[in-house]
Amino acid sequence: MGLFKSNRVVYKPVKDMNLGPDSTEFYLQANVKAPRMTGIVVKIVTWLLESRIFGPLLVYILKGNNLIHKHVTNADLEEPPLYVPLHHFEDHKEQEVKCLDFNLTPPEKVEVAINCLPTTFDKPINGTKPSLNRWTIMDYFNAYSSGVITPNMVAERFIAAVDESSKPRLQMGFFINYNVEDILRQANESTIRYQKGEPISVLDGVPVAIKDEIDCLPYPTTGGTKWLHKQRPCTDDAGCITRLRLCGAMLVGKTNMHELGAGTSGINPHYGASRNPYDASRIAGGSSSGSAAVVSAGLCPVALGVDGGGSVRMPAALCGVVGLKPTFGRIPHDGVIPLNWSVGMVGILAGTVEDSLITYAAISGEIPSHQPSGVPAKINLPILPLTKSISDIKLAKYGKWFDDCSEDVRICCSHALNKLQGRYGWKIVDVTIPEIEVMRLAHYSTIGSECHTSLDSFQDKNLAESGWDVRVALKIYGAFSSMEYIKAQKIRNRQLQFHKKIFSEADVIVSPTTGVTAYPIQSDALKTGELDYVNGAALIRYSIAGNFLGLPAVTVPVGYDKSGLPIGLQFIGRPWAEATLLHLAFAMQAICMSEYRKPAIYYDYDLLRTK
Amino acid sequence: MGLFKSNRVVYKPVKDMNLGPDSTEFYLQANVKAPRMTGIVVKIVTWLLESRIFGPLLVYILKGNNLIHKHVTNADLEEPPLYVPLHHFEDHKEQEVKCLDFNLTPPEKVEVAINCLPTTFDKPINGTKPSLNRWTIMDYFNAYSSGVITPNMVAERFIAAVDESSKPRLQMGFFINYNVEDILRQANESTIRYQKGEPISVLDGVPVAIKDEIDCLPYPTTGGTKWLHKQRPCTDDAGCITRLRLCGAMLVGKTNMHELGAGTSGINPHYGASRNPYDASRIAGGSSSGSAAVVSAGLCPVALGVDGGGSVRMPAALCGVVGLKPTFGRIPHDGVIPLNWSVGMVGILAGTVEDSLITYAAISGEIPSHQPSGVPAKINLPILPLTKSISDIKLAKYGKWFDDCSEDVRICCSHALNKLQGRYGWKIVDVTIPEIEVMRLAHYSTIGSECHTSLDSFQDKNLAESGWDVRVALKIYGAFSSMEYIKAQKIRNRQLQFHKKIFSEADVIVSPTTGVTAYPIQSDALKTGELDYVNGAALIRYSIAGNFLGLPAVTVPVGYDKSGLPIGLQFIGRPWAEATLLHLAFAMQAICMSEYRKPAIYYDYDLLRTK
Repeated sequence: MGLFKSNRVVYKPVKDMNLGPDSTEFYLQANVKAPRMTGIVVKIVTWLLESRIFGPLLVYILKGNNLIHKHVTNADLEEPPLYVPLHHFEDHKEQEVKCLDFNLTPPEKVEVAINCLPTTFDKPINGTKPSLNRWTIMDYFNAYSSGVITPNMVAERFIAAVDESSKPRLQMGFFINYNVEDILRQANESTIRYQKGEPISVLDGVPVAIKDEIDCLPYPTTGGTKWLHKQRPCTDDAGCITRLRLCGAMLVGKTNMHELGAGTSGINPHYGASRNPYDASRIAGGSSSGSAAVVSAGLCPVALGVDGGGSVRMPAALCGVVGLKPTFGRIPHDGVIPLNWSVGMVGILAGTVEDSLITYAAISGEIPSHQPSGVPAKINLPILPLTKSISDIKLAKYGKWFDDCSEDVRICCSHALNKLQGRYGWKIVDVTIPEIEVMRLAHYSTIGSECHTSLDSFQDKNLAESGWDVRVALKIYGAFSSMEYIKAQKIRNRQLQFHKKIFSEADVIVSPTTGVTAYPIQSDALKTGELDYVNGAALIRYSIAGNFLGLPAVTVPVGYDKSGLPIGLQFIGRPWAEATLLHLAFAMQAICMSEYRKPAIYYDYDLLRTK
Repeated sequence: MGLFKSNRVVYKPVKDMNLGPDSTEFYLQANVKAPRMTGIVVKIVTWLLESRIFGPLLVYILKGNNLIHKHVTNADLEEPPLYVPLHHFEDHKEQEVKCLDFNLTPPEKVEVAINCLPTTFDKPINGTKPSLNRWTIMDYFNAYSSGVITPNMVAERFIAAVDESSKPRLQMGFFINYNVEDILRQANESTIRYQKGEPISVLDGVPVAIKDEIDCLPYPTTGGTKWLHKQRPCTDDAGCITRLRLCGAMLVGKTNMHELGAGTSGINPHYGASRNPYDASRIAGGSSSGSAAVVSAGLCPVALGVDGGGSVRMPAALCGVVGLKPTFGRIPHDGVIPLNWSVGMVGILAGTVEDSLITYAAISGEIPSHQPSGVPAKINLPILPLTKSISDIKLAKYGKWFDDCSEDVRICCSHALNKLQGRYGWKIVDVTIPEIEVMRLAHYSTIGSECHTSLDSFQDKNLAESGWDVRVALKIYGAFSSMEYIKAQKIRNRQLQFHKKIFSEADVIVSPTTGVTAYPIQSDALKTGELDYVNGAALIRYSIAGNFLGLPAVTVPVGYDKSGLPIGLQFIGRPWAEATLLHLAFAMQAICMSEYRKPAIYYDYDLLRTK
């Protein structure tokens, strides 16, 4: 076909490129031309895409409009493909850390994490009491241990709250499945352990919610669909769930998600839109929508998500919670729906950095054996807080990229970063990261190709049961050639080289987490889903390196836009350097937490104390 | 499209499959329906394939006829994709070996190899003098050191021989380029070193030929084309060439090859067919055609090739020489035309196993840094010969596969294996390796996709300059979807699991090297190339595991068919277990060499002694 025949893009050798602040490398803004579509329009597009005559042409036009032809298909670049972003372990000599032995049991790992926590829990640095004081894992543990409240009481309160939030008045869309009997059974067992004075770990009896992409008995794993669990029965706990159970955590159900992870809004036509606790008329973000929302709403201190293209960090930022995506391969991936193989990772959504740390310690471990290699030699946990004595941390900032967001996000993130720098005197290194938008397109081609392959055996009979927006996405996902896939992997290698260069000059890259805050849910999107590639591109703008290059990344709430919607700041780290990220995130949290605001929809377990 | 809509193939879980001799797994014979085509027919097919209207349909039909739709496109399998067959180093506790330190210089490595050689060079076990006694590296070194002959004399004789072999009467098609001045300069420098009594290593002054896919100054790297070297200038020696130069080897030119490695016959329309020294009317095999032929014809004791789909082992077997393809990643790959990234490896063609060993020691080394991981912890060299005391070697044989070849090949290989077993008492383990033909199709999809991607930036302007058969191949190569590519990688993972299971029961897998011997060159193929997927499939039948799974493999001559054409036997080993393979190959060679026959075209440097 000769339509939109673009010129070839010849990529310069990496060694010839200037990544400094004075670089002449062009910052390409996402130039998405697809209009926002909902309702009947989505249905018509779906019908056209699925037609044998118009489908291929329309896909071709969509790929062209999104510059995939130009930047991926017609790319000329020297780099060999890098298919899996699995990194050699390198010891970055992280400071103020404890080393976590692989051979420890999950409860023993949690114990090490506890010893990393600051002795003054949750006290904001300036001493004022914040309006929001989420219950942390230690709050539950201390309340249970003191006998003031019991896991049974929390379970009952949790069930009542979820029940209330599901009612027509709110329709928060938090969960796809939760089993009252199973929750009460776990609560009861935990209550007995505390009564005997034998809790397994600080996670004992602590409610943890699980994205419905991760196998967790006794639930089916729907992946947000109405059909996948029938084809792929859940027969066992995923590896990360096993570890949480070993710590005594109370697994309270399967959270809502964007269907098949194929979108960022969290609007699910089958299970309802996951609504944002800060404003129920707005999206929670996705695809780990429910996991972000339940933590934000105070129902759980921690939830698990899966992050294949910012799917943990984006909803975390939009819902005002912490989101941690560890290094690729850091968390066992068995028992996660294999929607892709080279970008996705289990991630943690938590109310505080401390709780991310505890959960990270509980579920981290060796990498699965099918990976070619690269077993990390050790896991570091940060000793919190970072003392001021570490004065040599360098934060890389790419100004044009950092500023490519809404005004509120830009001002808020810049302000937070200034405060962080002001307090610790850390150096901001101005850098240029070339071809970030190209990386987004390459990542899209990759995750799309892998998702299509993964679902191929189901599609014929099941596609019609999926939502309209997902059907559109899957049609585009299925349209990549092997050459486009391989070129995307060449771009992956190239980007890794850029990032390695940046990391030779700086310890982390800092950016906003999303380009926009939570946008309104349109009523005609509720049944059909919506196609909003403009907002989608803005949401995902800062997420790609974490997935495509397998780098660890964390988002921490730093403020609110004019409408009171949360804004997150992101730190992206070197491979295996989660400890440094958590140090920084904690420092950032300590600065900002005095200004944290309570969501409109919020369930406070403090009420139990007074009962 | 709904043409040839095949049923889906649902692959059983590996754990449920019986790989023993009593397995009910079906042996699928290559069911290639494409007829042999040359001349005007190839041109018509090319024209159809390159037409926008008929092309896609014809490709679809070709893929269907070759069962790619059924076994790859419509495959349902659980395994995650394995993109690069780079293996963890595992110490197999190989016996009777010397360990080669990575930090040694190439000449020091060669010195270690020399100490592994048997003290009784080239003496056939039964004491009779063979009719063929190729000059080995040690023969050159001893002749040079004693002053009987000099590198200058060898260079002159070499140049005269190549000149003669290129004349219309023979048209052997050995070389694409050889530079008389450069050869004489090297010879002269080497002669001076010997005169001073300071040779660098036993490789000093030894003629070594290089496949024209590997960068070697002062030559362009044509890849067998008339155009690639103009687009991709050769600016430096490849890593393996640097090592050979450091050993003092005399690099005597760039050998002919199947254009772009996209075929197995070695019929090159631009530089002539590489002819078989045993019968100049027949193919040398490919794609490292000239490298096999020059070693066979006695011009060099050693030549380098590249093996992406048997391209070293097939021509080695057809020309009656030894062919070694080391474990993926064992030889530095920089400076090799990147026609693929996940299956190709530099390999060695040599007159004897001993010379393979010396060359292997010279050029082996750390893996390139862009690979995700898996640096082998050590390289073992076998101490030759293997003593009879090692009685516990187990050879896996899959009877249905072993026997799926011409009668002559089957009888000859069975006979050789029986003799080996008889002499050493080693155990043959009967096994079943499922889905070997599926692996060939998956490998084809993979190498095709990668080759097409590699050449994409050139194709538009240069395709028309390539041979007709290559143009057909490239059209098919360009027709794979990202899903087909990823499913091929899932099949790769699956096959690796089968092979790992086999290697838990046996040390090597034994098979013929090719299913047929050298077939005749048809005159109308000389200008157009030929499309012969039936012979191609028979040639490549035993090669795929070496490339697709990255396993080391070696072929050793074991006899001749009724027409006097050579037959090779192949050993496939565990990752990084080249030493075991070379032990076995040497044992096999010792048994067979008394019956080795001299090629019809043969240049014997012995003549120099009498001058």
